[in-house]
Amino acid sequence: MLGRVASGSILPPTIRQLLSGSATDVRVKVNGWVQSVRRQKNVTFAVISDGSSTQGLQAVIRDGSLAEVLTNGASVSLGGTLTHSLGKGQDKELRVEEVQVVGECDPATYPIQKQALTMEYLRDNCHFRARTSRISEMLRLRATSSDAFQKFFNSLGFCYVHTPIVTSSDCEGAGETFRVISAISDLSSEKDTDKPSEFFGHPAYLTVSSQLHLEALATALSRVYTLSPCFRAERSQTSRHLSEFWMLEAEWAFTQTVNDVCSVVEAAVKDGITKTQAHSRTFAEGPSSPRILEYLHTASSTAPWTRLSYTDAVSELSKYQASARKFQFEPAWGKPLQSEHERWLAEELVKAPVFVTDYPASLKPFYMRLNDDDKTVACFDLLVPHLGELAGGSLREERSELLNNALERQELDKAQYGWYTELRKYGGAPHGGFGLGFERFISWISGVENVRECIAVPRWAGRMLL
Amino acid sequence: MLGRVASGSILPPTIRQLLSGSATDVRVKVNGWVQSVRRQKNVTFAVISDGSSTQGLQAVIRDGSLAEVLTNGASVSLGGTLTHSLGKGQDKELRVEEVQVVGECDPATYPIQKQALTMEYLRDNCHFRARTSRISEMLRLRATSSDAFQKFFNSLGFCYVHTPIVTSSDCEGAGETFRVISAISDLSSEKDTDKPSEFFGHPAYLTVSSQLHLEALATALSRVYTLSPCFRAERSQTSRHLSEFWMLEAEWAFTQTVNDVCSVVEAAVKDGITKTQAHSRTFAEGPSSPRILEYLHTASSTAPWTRLSYTDAVSELSKYQASARKFQFEPAWGKPLQSEHERWLAEELVKAPVFVTDYPASLKPFYMRLNDDDKTVACFDLLVPHLGELAGGSLREERSELLNNALERQELDKAQYGWYTELRKYGGAPHGGFGLGFERFISWISGVENVRECIAVPRWAGRMLL
Repeated sequence: MLGRVASGSILPPTIRQLLSGSATDVRVKVNGWVQSVRRQKNVTFAVISDGSSTQGLQAVIRDGSLAEVLTNGASVSLGGTLTHSLGKGQDKELRVEEVQVVGECDPATYPIQKQALTMEYLRDNCHFRARTSRISEMLRLRATSSDAFQKFFNSLGFCYVHTPIVTSSDCEGAGETFRVISAISDLSSEKDTDKPSEFFGHPAYLTVSSQLHLEALATALSRVYTLSPCFRAERSQTSRHLSEFWMLEAEWAFTQTVNDVCSVVEAAVKDGITKTQAHSRTFAEGPSSPRILEYLHTASSTAPWTRLSYTDAVSELSKYQASARKFQFEPAWGKPLQSEHERWLAEELVKAPVFVTDYPASLKPFYMRLNDDDKTVACFDLLVPHLGELAGGSLREERSELLNNALERQELDKAQYGWYTELRKYGGAPHGGFGLGFERFISWISGVENVRECIAVPRWAGRMLL
Repeated sequence: MLGRVASGSILPPTIRQLLSGSATDVRVKVNGWVQSVRRQKNVTFAVISDGSSTQGLQAVIRDGSLAEVLTNGASVSLGGTLTHSLGKGQDKELRVEEVQVVGECDPATYPIQKQALTMEYLRDNCHFRARTSRISEMLRLRATSSDAFQKFFNSLGFCYVHTPIVTSSDCEGAGETFRVISAISDLSSEKDTDKPSEFFGHPAYLTVSSQLHLEALATALSRVYTLSPCFRAERSQTSRHLSEFWMLEAEWAFTQTVNDVCSVVEAAVKDGITKTQAHSRTFAEGPSSPRILEYLHTASSTAPWTRLSYTDAVSELSKYQASARKFQFEPAWGKPLQSEHERWLAEELVKAPVFVTDYPASLKPFYMRLNDDDKTVACFDLLVPHLGELAGGSLREERSELLNNALERQELDKAQYGWYTELRKYGGAPHGGFGLGFERFISWISGVENVRECIAVPRWAGRMLL
């Protein structure tokens, strides 16, 4: 009985449900917003969107008095008959018999006008921009992607978990964190004492990664993943960084090689590409339409993706630099790969996604597992054409002594990581995992270049609307 | 091809997958933690758990030298044959031929001993407590619940969205918020100036509810929902409150009555009860086993749930108080319902979940839609036996003038809510929604009384481990 209730009788069908259903020549009521109005002599055509699908519903209004009240952006409730459409571009249309404007919209002052609006303008009108077809498509793409990743990990026996947002530790040790204080133990009172009164008894930060907490849960549930907000107080203003962003992170026990970790990431991303194809096709028709379909096709059909050690990558980069001298930064073993290097590896050398593995320990965080060469760690960065770094991961150091050495080498407070090292002391297991920038994935799948357009309500240094 | 990869060939099967599969008399390798060891003269039985299911796998070891190394809590990799079990309590067992301890665990000092551990002790050992059967079952219940809610809302045409965590507004106006500052623009520098330098240019807070942002998205996508972390800097230490908790929130346009909103909530919660039955049964066998199955059965079979106006509720409470004088707080129209009142309504008067609707406007936030009586608002609280308030929601005031009046009456800064009132000015629509405390739902479904045991890593005033 619940099944029937849940399958749609509580709420009337959405436009997506109407368009994908088989029923025609039935009386329906359609709610939505007027996307466009085209008035002809004896008939008016309006496109109604309720945000449930890429395509709106074509409404055909023969009664001029009914059509009069329709303006762009108004919210309306239309009664009529859903019929097969004889026109081009749609299978079905609504022959309108009844029109009710439930929310007026003054076309003269409405911030979302028909003409193309700049991304910057839409960022300033963040509360309205989901009404544009491009941003609403991006939001549907996020939902489809999230669903795809969840199904993928569930099928592999992973448990979806919620890790804390407020935390005492700084996973990457990068320092670019946000602090959390109680608004009431407010700043003015702090002037009298040396320290702010801490709500939690000690300093609290916004998480930069769920990884350490996932590791604790992976030593109990074996396979865990989350899609969770993360935060960086970065002041740099690039098209790839947000102060608040979402990360897909997975962690699992009893995995032995970085190659095995890469295989899970590769399968997850390929599955994600496949499940979001319809969205990619829609974006490919859009104004900025880069070669999305081309590079996604290459990525999802090339099997398996190339895996290249950092050492080999630097050697390839050096060879190219020796002959072409195109890089601003000289490639050298022990130095970080620059953005120009990463792009060349994915776009020129491999021409497809590539895993670069086994970076020098000195370039990576303390928790990555040391390789037998004592110099590199069992990690990878996944570099993809037209984006750069999409994901990163590693085996985690499960050997207590080596973990302690790494903490010392990086001058981290051992006491703060006491619980983390204890995970190794009692029933620890070889394990690994990765993190994938969700907005970067959305950007890559859609070809929308700036991640500020890949999240509903973006935040960056100096900017927080709503 | 991707499908095959995704369906399990990348990673070996989990114990759950092995137990639910049909294959027996096959060679398998099983990874997990030793949950218990029972040594008999010629054979040793060990239960191995990998956290993928309630039930562990029984391992039968006939070779004494192999069994020697098994201790509680150790992580092991066992090779052997999966066979039908002749013993009681399980269908399958593993005849062990090979044992590898991959992570030792000193039984003398291991914090998770076999005897019953107090909840308080486990909170202090938060990094280990997911290894107990009770907490791991709770984590699997969270995953099942989240999946059930997502499927339910997807089937009704809702779009899953991510709303911001860092925000400029305080939805409930309660003041118990956390502030977010950059750790680098640190507190010491604030002593020199009057104000801290704000990373975002103006004060930032952790969200207390996603509602206002969901409303903006609902005027574009019609139907949206999220399962998102929320934060309250509450100092009260109750079994129902956390500083960081998760809320299921949904918001949809073109809904006209609070009864319609209640119907969606009722269907969602009933569906949730049905989909999590297996977990409830497991918890019902546990130590605190209250009448979970009984009250859940009543809740899911009574159709529809009682809906009672606040006015009628106060009248019932007053009648009862007049005769029985059991309440500490005198019930009176215009005063909030106290916890004792709420419990009496659900547990004594209705003996099932009950929606109390249409509270006085003075008791509720500014955004709730004013009823025609000019005194009450179109809202509800869902009260359930053995818990109290599980969810709350309302129609939202979509009439600009009345919304402005409410902002004035509650002395809120109109400029701060400019974007929110603009949503009404251009293509607004009647809409409503609700929020359901996810940990409260988990507590109700499991009978686990304190919400601190209903989340992986709990945070409350004075307490933030990990």
